Amino acid sequence: MKSLALLKRYDWQKLQQFCTEVFIRAGVDKNHANTVADSLIQADLRGVDSHGVVRTAIYLERIERNMMNPFAEPEIEMEQGPTVLLNGNNNFGAVVGSKALDIALEKAKEQGIAVVGVKESNHFGTGAFYALKAIEKNMILLLMSNASQTMPPTGGKRPFIGTNPLAVGVPAGKELPFVLDMATSVVARGKIIVAAQKGSDIPLGWAIDKDGNPTTDADAALQGSVLPVGGPKGYAISMFIDILAGVLTGAGYGKYVNNMYENWNEPQNVGHFFIAIDIERFMPLDLFKERMDRYIQEIKAEPKADGVNEILIPGEIEHRLVIERKKTGLELPEKVENELEAIGRRYSLKLSDALIDSCYSNQKKEAVN
Amino acid sequence: MKSLALLKRYDWQKLQQFCTEVFIRAGVDKNHANTVADSLIQADLRGVDSHGVVRTAIYLERIERNMMNPFAEPEIEMEQGPTVLLNGNNNFGAVVGSKALDIALEKAKEQGIAVVGVKESNHFGTGAFYALKAIEKNMILLLMSNASQTMPPTGGKRPFIGTNPLAVGVPAGKELPFVLDMATSVVARGKIIVAAQKGSDIPLGWAIDKDGNPTTDADAALQGSVLPVGGPKGYAISMFIDILAGVLTGAGYGKYVNNMYENWNEPQNVGHFFIAIDIERFMPLDLFKERMDRYIQEIKAEPKADGVNEILIPGEIEHRLVIERKKTGLELPEKVENELEAIGRRYSLKLSDALIDSCYSNQKKEAVN
Repeated sequence: MKSLALLKRYDWQKLQQFCTEVFIRAGVDKNHANTVADSLIQADLRGVDSHGVVRTAIYLERIERNMMNPFAEPEIEMEQGPTVLLNGNNNFGAVVGSKALDIALEKAKEQGIAVVGVKESNHFGTGAFYALKAIEKNMILLLMSNASQTMPPTGGKRPFIGTNPLAVGVPAGKELPFVLDMATSVVARGKIIVAAQKGSDIPLGWAIDKDGNPTTDADAALQGSVLPVGGPKGYAISMFIDILAGVLTGAGYGKYVNNMYENWNEPQNVGHFFIAIDIERFMPLDLFKERMDRYIQEIKAEPKADGVNEILIPGEIEHRLVIERKKTGLELPEKVENELEAIGRRYSLKLSDALIDSCYSNQKKEAVN
Repeated sequence: MKSLALLKRYDWQKLQQFCTEVFIRAGVDKNHANTVADSLIQADLRGVDSHGVVRTAIYLERIERNMMNPFAEPEIEMEQGPTVLLNGNNNFGAVVGSKALDIALEKAKEQGIAVVGVKESNHFGTGAFYALKAIEKNMILLLMSNASQTMPPTGGKRPFIGTNPLAVGVPAGKELPFVLDMATSVVARGKIIVAAQKGSDIPLGWAIDKDGNPTTDADAALQGSVLPVGGPKGYAISMFIDILAGVLTGAGYGKYVNNMYENWNEPQNVGHFFIAIDIERFMPLDLFKERMDRYIQEIKAEPKADGVNEILIPGEIEHRLVIERKKTGLELPEKVENELEAIGRRYSLKLSDALIDSCYSNQKKEAVN
């Protein structure tokens, strides 16, 4: 294990402050800047580094090249009882998603259930970000978003649907809450990139090559497409998410959801679909939490297969990572560090100010010696 | 291919009539008898034979042994705006589910969205049965049910969660509607039974043996458990269905959902969760249908992988089977035929009256010759 003193590790709060300041100096409203930075740091803390501060650079570029509009507030287009259609007006996905969540939670408290369909949004970060906020308010959240094309339909050979994520948040009592946040692909594309870098094979069933043939070659897979989880089942789940979040809301769907990294002519037009449910319409909250605790305790007490230390519930690993990373700090890949340092220089901010004190002081000591 | 004349094939309407009559003579109210028979025949027509008339015998036995109460009407226990808690009062799952669907569709028309949580129900047949009825009314339906224990949690070695199904129905315009109806297992247990009968291996990942080890041996798999689809993802989906349909409604969950075939001391206490959404709260119905048609047409027009004839949307295969089976009749396994004949004798009904005319007359001719 590497010694902590030799690693550069960032304090999550200082790093969030750095990102917030970057967005503010890029012209973003303070509250919105804070929401976006919060969403990025929460992802890093939970171990979903692909959705963390690594995205700062692309978000800034989308703003600078007028592909995203941080100044236009999301607007309600239709509203009646428990149903709302929200136009994101092409603001940050995290800003639009947070607005949709607030509306959904408020309406669900009032009406028992609420649905907020969202169009003209952008990549909204992790679903867990919203699920956890709903849990804090003792509400159940079902959340979907579509995404740009990455997976073929079953039988197809090129990407048509996105790895459209599904998230569910449910509060418990003494036990950890249930937090599901999954892409509808077999694995994250990142895992295939790692295999390619190591020169190792990938399991059959993860991906197809550019001609639509199953492949174990990581390079061929990267030229091709990652597959939906569980074959036709994942294809169908990804498709209904696209229908609810895209077709029904008026957002893009299929090829009309634009790729954030590749399309510099048009906004992404991502769609989301938030359903919030008030537990107390079914039973008293305390009773529900007791039942959740019992359910979770019973699952965790199940006999384990050989070599398994513990049965986990969705969100448990991430919860532990948050505790650990808040203590030990966040480690950033060199590429991300360099990007953030360069961004910092443009806005007269020093990334190194976000290093955790012990690292910083050890480094200073080393420099002095 | 076997000649049609030599096969005994049943006319779907006559077979439905036979089943309806059986239930009526067993004391079931005419409307309820019709609902249950409708649900069984629709499953057979769609090729989901495991949920078809094969279930007639077990349903009758559950009634006769007082494990199911066909006389108690489902009752609304809580109702406020768009949220309803329905107590199935242990009637047939299809009766309770149909009542829940009616309420959900009516409320959603009024409120824009509605949720009906259901407790004290029984196995409710296929999810597609309800999804298709919602589609007829131009509504979107999301539907979940829990089920008795069949799958281990990830890392476990024995069944804890059910293959809790998820169904989604969405109307289209000229194209076929989107009808997803999936169990949260990798495959139906029936496929493992078929492999065991043939003495062939099953793919790794379908099941574990009784000690929780991955197995390709079909017999060992039958002693063990079928696995959730996509590993931890299917486990998490099955779990949130159990939470919404079971923990939240007050129905059974985990081990408290009783097995219809094995537990003769208590009702099943299955839970369901119906969410209906009115499309017109988001856009005009015609526009939505146009967008659905375009979406489906674009997916179906995608370039196909080698050896693939057609890209299908969820529900398409089943739709074709319905057309075919309505024409050619339903074929029943000998075991099911014998069971139904025996049931018929008890109630002075002849199963052979449900044979399609051509078969019947051919058989008569053969008998004459």
